[in-house]
Amino acid sequence: MSTFEYLFNPRSIAVIGASPEANRPGAQTIRALQDNGFKGGVYPVNPKYGEVAGLRCYAAIKDVPKPCDIAVIALPAALVPQTVDECGAYGVRFVVVVGGGFREMGKEGEEREVQMLAAARKHGVRIVGPNCLGLVNVHTRAYAAFGSLARPPVLQPGPVSVVIQSGGFGNSLVVRCAAAGVGFRQVVASGSESDLTTPELVEAMIDDPGTKLILMYMEGMNDGRRFVAAAERALAAGKPIVVWKAGNTEQGVKAAASHTANMTGSYDIYRAAFRQCGVVEVHEMEEAIDCIQCLLAFGDRPAGDDVAIMGGSGGSAVVFSDAADQYGIRLAELSPPTHTILKKVLPGTASLENPIDYAAGFITDANTPRFREAVDAVLADPAVHQLGVLFATTTGEHARNGATVLAEAVQKHKKPIFTFLSVPRETTGGGMDILEKAAIPILPSPTRVVKAMKVLSDYQRARTRVNVTVQTEAPAVKKYPSGTLSEHESKEILKTWGIAVTTDRLLPATALYAGDAEGTSFPVALKVVSRDIPHKSEIGGVRLNIRNDTELAVAVREMLERVQRAAPKAKLDGLLVSEMITDGIETIVGVVNDSVFGPVVAFGLGGIFAETLKDVTYRLAPFGLETAHEMIAELRASPILSGVRGKPAGDIPALAQTLVAVSGLAWQLRDSLEEMDINPLLVRPVGVIAADALLRFR
Amino acid sequence: MSTFEYLFNPRSIAVIGASPEANRPGAQTIRALQDNGFKGGVYPVNPKYGEVAGLRCYAAIKDVPKPCDIAVIALPAALVPQTVDECGAYGVRFVVVVGGGFREMGKEGEEREVQMLAAARKHGVRIVGPNCLGLVNVHTRAYAAFGSLARPPVLQPGPVSVVIQSGGFGNSLVVRCAAAGVGFRQVVASGSESDLTTPELVEAMIDDPGTKLILMYMEGMNDGRRFVAAAERALAAGKPIVVWKAGNTEQGVKAAASHTANMTGSYDIYRAAFRQCGVVEVHEMEEAIDCIQCLLAFGDRPAGDDVAIMGGSGGSAVVFSDAADQYGIRLAELSPPTHTILKKVLPGTASLENPIDYAAGFITDANTPRFREAVDAVLADPAVHQLGVLFATTTGEHARNGATVLAEAVQKHKKPIFTFLSVPRETTGGGMDILEKAAIPILPSPTRVVKAMKVLSDYQRARTRVNVTVQTEAPAVKKYPSGTLSEHESKEILKTWGIAVTTDRLLPATALYAGDAEGTSFPVALKVVSRDIPHKSEIGGVRLNIRNDTELAVAVREMLERVQRAAPKAKLDGLLVSEMITDGIETIVGVVNDSVFGPVVAFGLGGIFAETLKDVTYRLAPFGLETAHEMIAELRASPILSGVRGKPAGDIPALAQTLVAVSGLAWQLRDSLEEMDINPLLVRPVGVIAADALLRFR
Repeated sequence: MSTFEYLFNPRSIAVIGASPEANRPGAQTIRALQDNGFKGGVYPVNPKYGEVAGLRCYAAIKDVPKPCDIAVIALPAALVPQTVDECGAYGVRFVVVVGGGFREMGKEGEEREVQMLAAARKHGVRIVGPNCLGLVNVHTRAYAAFGSLARPPVLQPGPVSVVIQSGGFGNSLVVRCAAAGVGFRQVVASGSESDLTTPELVEAMIDDPGTKLILMYMEGMNDGRRFVAAAERALAAGKPIVVWKAGNTEQGVKAAASHTANMTGSYDIYRAAFRQCGVVEVHEMEEAIDCIQCLLAFGDRPAGDDVAIMGGSGGSAVVFSDAADQYGIRLAELSPPTHTILKKVLPGTASLENPIDYAAGFITDANTPRFREAVDAVLADPAVHQLGVLFATTTGEHARNGATVLAEAVQKHKKPIFTFLSVPRETTGGGMDILEKAAIPILPSPTRVVKAMKVLSDYQRARTRVNVTVQTEAPAVKKYPSGTLSEHESKEILKTWGIAVTTDRLLPATALYAGDAEGTSFPVALKVVSRDIPHKSEIGGVRLNIRNDTELAVAVREMLERVQRAAPKAKLDGLLVSEMITDGIETIVGVVNDSVFGPVVAFGLGGIFAETLKDVTYRLAPFGLETAHEMIAELRASPILSGVRGKPAGDIPALAQTLVAVSGLAWQLRDSLEEMDINPLLVRPVGVIAADALLRFR
Repeated sequence: MSTFEYLFNPRSIAVIGASPEANRPGAQTIRALQDNGFKGGVYPVNPKYGEVAGLRCYAAIKDVPKPCDIAVIALPAALVPQTVDECGAYGVRFVVVVGGGFREMGKEGEEREVQMLAAARKHGVRIVGPNCLGLVNVHTRAYAAFGSLARPPVLQPGPVSVVIQSGGFGNSLVVRCAAAGVGFRQVVASGSESDLTTPELVEAMIDDPGTKLILMYMEGMNDGRRFVAAAERALAAGKPIVVWKAGNTEQGVKAAASHTANMTGSYDIYRAAFRQCGVVEVHEMEEAIDCIQCLLAFGDRPAGDDVAIMGGSGGSAVVFSDAADQYGIRLAELSPPTHTILKKVLPGTASLENPIDYAAGFITDANTPRFREAVDAVLADPAVHQLGVLFATTTGEHARNGATVLAEAVQKHKKPIFTFLSVPRETTGGGMDILEKAAIPILPSPTRVVKAMKVLSDYQRARTRVNVTVQTEAPAVKKYPSGTLSEHESKEILKTWGIAVTTDRLLPATALYAGDAEGTSFPVALKVVSRDIPHKSEIGGVRLNIRNDTELAVAVREMLERVQRAAPKAKLDGLLVSEMITDGIETIVGVVNDSVFGPVVAFGLGGIFAETLKDVTYRLAPFGLETAHEMIAELRASPILSGVRGKPAGDIPALAQTLVAVSGLAWQLRDSLEEMDINPLLVRPVGVIAADALLRFR
């Protein structure tokens, strides 16, 4: 029995702070356990009462019968540390602290939280909360919960387990999904997560055999890498994770800060992390419902972006096609044998090209065998990865026949099938029931069919993505000086990691240039080198387009004078004579060592694109070539790299290779590297080259 | 009685091609009329039968009793023209042609359509269709319809009239809205629109006193300006138009072409047109439902982007705030008197800043007066334009109390109020019923509250936008030569319309330059001028950065030689010496004379922005300054115009003025101007100037 079995499947639950007053949290928990028929022990604890809700009430936790796996603590914050200690001493495995009054309340609350955690660690007790609605095992009706989580509507058992950081909104999401027919297993409102955190709860749910899919609402995490590791395990295990992450915008972060003790961090990085480990992100109730439905039905089937559409409503096919264009779903070109069969079985007025229009009114009883043959042919076509059938307003016998054929087909073929059907259940001649029984998703618009298909193909792509082992050959030196390095030092380090940098020559800063530029290929740039001058252009420490030896001599003299005037105390390492690259497209590659997710690589185009237009993409380091190419392709300004207005294309393979190398560096130096900036990284027709760089170590 | 009264409120309906076979269209129409209790006359027509569906069947239209306002023609296409003629001769006002077989079927069909239209025009008969599901007056149960439009679910009467170009999908939309509680008035499936078109039907619905809102599904129109005029009238009348336009993408246009005879045209221009005349665009079922609900409830109330949020669920406020950021809804800063009241009435744990968190569990019976005071204070705050109450999982007494207070408040204050409530109706203690009765929208997510608020504020903005009368002073000359004009000719015309162009001097092309550049301010550009050379740079007909008289003399000689070699037959008007502008941001202004909407102004930034990144905005000409500023602001690259990376900002007022001037020119010359391109229009720190231009006339 894993430790979490005690939490998810408790043998009995004590409620400390039990009360006969119906509105008190303790009373709510006991009522929920009784109303929903929990079969384990329910032990009210309160020295004031002999009996609560018809149950014997105990004076203290030490008096309740053993075993008692969970204690719900519904007491003022000041009493919690001592109570946790008592619970631990008595052998309780998990406590649920429903009330607030901890670190979100300032210094006094912080101290209380430290005491509570100390008491828990002393006994190996784990804490859910504080400041949370608790948890429910829907299958065993174990309600260690209060508030809306303990009230109707009663959830139906099913394969979806849930972690929600905000009880109120998270439970709104759960209730909406429940109304759409989703069944649940564990629902945990994790609150302030003083002890048990979202990643750890997700891990426990992955290990729970009855959980087939994990749904999350969250505003922030403290240990992003632990979550990523869990998500990768879930991906490998075929248990999809669907997450609604909030607190992503300026107003959203502000609102989150006012109600939660969790940090939100940069949404860009969360999004990158989710994408990298196949976590499905949603931002609307219906989107969550559709994702759950389609991933439960077809998460284990191969699925690609090339799809076929059949229907009797031309308008529905137009709406589908519009959405398909928008989401990157393609209408597959059917192969000749499929055409031959369609031509044979479909009516003369049918449109045999994809989207296939079998003409409204086709699926009569008499025509059903022909419809079956058409569906089989389309699903057998290797060009088709998924099938959408747009029934639209099909009713009665037609709806029933269509549903029957699809219910057979979804067994026979291993391809996902979706339907769009907009009429009420009672008009479908039982068709809707047949589809539901066959677990074929019924979506209320063609657009939602497209989105569901896209969720599946993205999920499938994530599952089959080559797992990245760090391929970067790390150089011998791994210990670097702390602080901000000079351009020259930074570039020397990049070179050792296999990243191409401009050919530079360091002149001593003390002497004037004597015209010994033998081997220098003009034009060149001249730049001052000093750890004390990170923004060198601001003090005249950069001169570009120096065309010959004479100009260089002048430039050296002038620059030394300028720098001396502007930064007399700066320690100069020298002056850098740097080759000028004129055939490169300017890009920016950065590394951020994020407090939640660790090293992250950022990439964007130079000029106004990254800085002004915020056209930047992120990925957690390390990653492989496939991911690097995704990054390049997803920039809005990406076409520029492919060559526009008569300019040659940049060397995208070399760029991708460099992003991978940077990600390897970022990962291997994660304990010391604070940040890194290659600006610009010039993408040339052949090769890429770092023209300036800056590394900062801890 | 307006003509359309006969269509929308027919006294009796003949069904030509009536049949006892249940699946035939004629039989479906009669059954729908009977099943739904149409009170007018129902006259089956078919020489083969004496009785159909228990009704007397007539041999021909001339035999049916008068008056007969609508004839549904359910006959093969070949018989339709003759039948229309007979209907017209007999005094039928409207015919509904349900079948296909017209212009979508090639030449024979086209001829048939011409004959049908000729017969109709002879008698003043109007045609709905062909190739359509017909129409329903939901209030009088007049089903001149077949297919899904004639089948259950039966629509409930209400204030929404509908025009749908695709019966199948359009009716899916209607059925979905109906399931969400929307009531309908006229539902017209207009099919191929041989005669009656979407704009004309919309006009008729605006004139229908019982119609309060018009819902449309469409793929294309032939007369966009007529629709725009109708939409502007609807806006003035306070009857919102909600449209789902499909066939907008490459795959969508392809799908539309395969099933409809209507043209789709450029979606960018449709979208511009919708925005300009306050038409609300939707692309999802739920979006349509929400728009209808909120516009019916609050379309007549002032509404802005500054809103207040109240609730007991912090997570819901975070989700709201995220969406608000995305859609341009702002959390209003509450004024001090509001704060004072909130501090007085809300509990100590409440968060008094907007989003206001009154703490879960607050709205008990005892606290209701305090909640009322809080709601009143927020709605009375002049900084607040709209209120959203995020009930989330509030149930029982709390939900009822909250609903009661809002139902009073929505009467007392003239500001829109929305709620988010995610629990089932039966758990709300009657609260949901109270909200519905008060016409306060109940939305199932905080994001949908945001979107509804945005729809209202956009609609309100459209209603109050200054109507544009064409202010442009038109020059005396209005007749221009046809064909493509040279740069010099084009710029001369722009000048007469008050659009600034570079200072240019035209040198004769026949003689060499003698160095008489007195008054020329170098540097200059030299460009060949010829109507026969529209792409002059491709043949070396452009030289930039000529710095003095000597260079100019050389450049003239060389250019004349080059052009003579490359285009020996071109008729040269001369060589243009043009001032070089170096302090301008490159933009592109174009005019397209669209086949659907007439003259349209396009605007984007130069370089790669407009061409490669498709960052272009459109508006129908003419328009005023407010619209011009909207265009400038909505470009993704708009920040560039405000000055980035140390560059000065462009003169945005002058740019806006020029866009308005171009729109005036485009409108006044709409009968002759084919297209126009100002590329680049340079936006300088002071003023804007056209550096190159090209006009083409019909």
